[in-house]
Amino acid sequence: MIEMQSDVQDILREGVERTDAALERLLPPVSQTPASIHKAMRHSVFAGGKRLRPVLAMEAAWMIAAVRGGSGLPDGIEELGAAIEMLHTYSLIHDDLPALDDDDLRRGKPTCHVAFGEAIAILAGDALQTLAYQTLARMRCSADRRVEMIRLIADATGTIEGMIGGQVLDLEGEHTKPTAEMVLAIHRAKTGALIRVSIVTGGIYAGADVEDAARLEKFGRKAGLAFQIVDDILDVTQDSQHLGKTAGKDVASDKATWPAVFGIETARRDANRLIAEAFAVLEPWGDAAGSLKAVARYLVERTH
Amino acid sequence: MIEMQSDVQDILREGVERTDAALERLLPPVSQTPASIHKAMRHSVFAGGKRLRPVLAMEAAWMIAAVRGGSGLPDGIEELGAAIEMLHTYSLIHDDLPALDDDDLRRGKPTCHVAFGEAIAILAGDALQTLAYQTLARMRCSADRRVEMIRLIADATGTIEGMIGGQVLDLEGEHTKPTAEMVLAIHRAKTGALIRVSIVTGGIYAGADVEDAARLEKFGRKAGLAFQIVDDILDVTQDSQHLGKTAGKDVASDKATWPAVFGIETARRDANRLIAEAFAVLEPWGDAAGSLKAVARYLVERTH
Repeated sequence: MIEMQSDVQDILREGVERTDAALERLLPPVSQTPASIHKAMRHSVFAGGKRLRPVLAMEAAWMIAAVRGGSGLPDGIEELGAAIEMLHTYSLIHDDLPALDDDDLRRGKPTCHVAFGEAIAILAGDALQTLAYQTLARMRCSADRRVEMIRLIADATGTIEGMIGGQVLDLEGEHTKPTAEMVLAIHRAKTGALIRVSIVTGGIYAGADVEDAARLEKFGRKAGLAFQIVDDILDVTQDSQHLGKTAGKDVASDKATWPAVFGIETARRDANRLIAEAFAVLEPWGDAAGSLKAVARYLVERTH
Repeated sequence: MIEMQSDVQDILREGVERTDAALERLLPPVSQTPASIHKAMRHSVFAGGKRLRPVLAMEAAWMIAAVRGGSGLPDGIEELGAAIEMLHTYSLIHDDLPALDDDDLRRGKPTCHVAFGEAIAILAGDALQTLAYQTLARMRCSADRRVEMIRLIADATGTIEGMIGGQVLDLEGEHTKPTAEMVLAIHRAKTGALIRVSIVTGGIYAGADVEDAARLEKFGRKAGLAFQIVDDILDVTQDSQHLGKTAGKDVASDKATWPAVFGIETARRDANRLIAEAFAVLEPWGDAAGSLKAVARYLVERTH
């Protein structure tokens, strides 16, 4: 009988702590030359992110380890979460630039280019992408698993149905009326792909086989879309102070969001339906999936 | 008795052809959604680069294959050159941006942001970095060698003595009088590291052991610095039409260059001395090093 790891707040807190400790170790110190870029990288990486992707990677790893007879989180899993968080942060830094979304505030703090200037912000984003691969290439598992994780993560952040592709679709779609097809394509690529690959690579690090990885991918596809729909709903319904970023911005710029296309009520129903379908995918893993489910449920029920 | 592969013009032509064919295959077609970024990536990748890094990777691979009893270039080596060229191109796209060097012209063509706008140029650079790792993770050699190449290449393009670090030092040093220490640090990191790692990973792909790799690294360190000094000299002595970019720009902005610190005559002597030292490093490989030497000699004797 496998018990749940612990309650969801403890899981989230442990995830943040382990990820932050790994990032602290992996990011060059601000005393290291050239100091300006290391300061900028740390400014954005330690801006108070919730580390959702690392937590999902950890819970997927915990589950796969458990069904394979292991117990606890595999050693070194936090380096995977840290690498993914570097990629997430690089995309935010570049997305916030004046030429893109032109955002001054992120999680209540000045964005990277506001604090360090555009040139350093561009290079800090570049360097975080690079550092993610420096990190992944050194992870504590076989070369076969490292190459597989690198391939999947690079694909998930690329132009074809990956993170950058989603950013381009999002840019191109601004100021035109969003369609259902468009919003689905953007969500799947811009945010969905990295969430999905966090879950899949967490499993692979813990020893997932091809069948496990395919099932994790399916879970991640449904759950990731549900999380993004909830994000969209919160942007419409919460005020800026509660969110820590400029609320209502998506509506103001005609951004392709789920509620903009389907309305709030349908969006809520869709998020709940997707999470139920995602949980059904986890059925074969039985009780071992408890923590992963608890985290996913928390993410669709959160209010900020 | 190992003969030289062929004359240097043939080597360079073959290097360009094989690299361009690989890039053509690896870059998404412009018909692929989202089209704008794929157009921008191709615009900059196919702007007439000389593919020096891929050629150096190929000649290092040819040499290592030859001394290990093989013959000819190892299958698939052009994918390594293509990945390195993607990284080189991404750094040029970002370096040309208004917030950095603000260049409108590169190899006689409009720079990426001039042709496609800043937002797409930033994302196209990001995507070329990503595509390099998508490519490296799929190369036709063992997972061990793939991970080793990825680790070395990521380190060589990072902030600590790597390409991005060199860009930051270069930015920070603008409009201050360059010192010998500064110009050496910038050259080693900004351009030297990627040249060096091209040579080392070319050897690794062909089966280099640890000792071979260390020797290739030493050769690449000396030869790479010599190439950069020649680049600096050409910037001072050639006109814009001959160079295909805005000549004299380095002097105008007080850029840290070798001739600015040491004068033209010393710069010429240093380049020749470094190449002689680099050739001495290749001695143990005897005649097998002929093509690599021929390419290196061509690069320090070129006039544009």
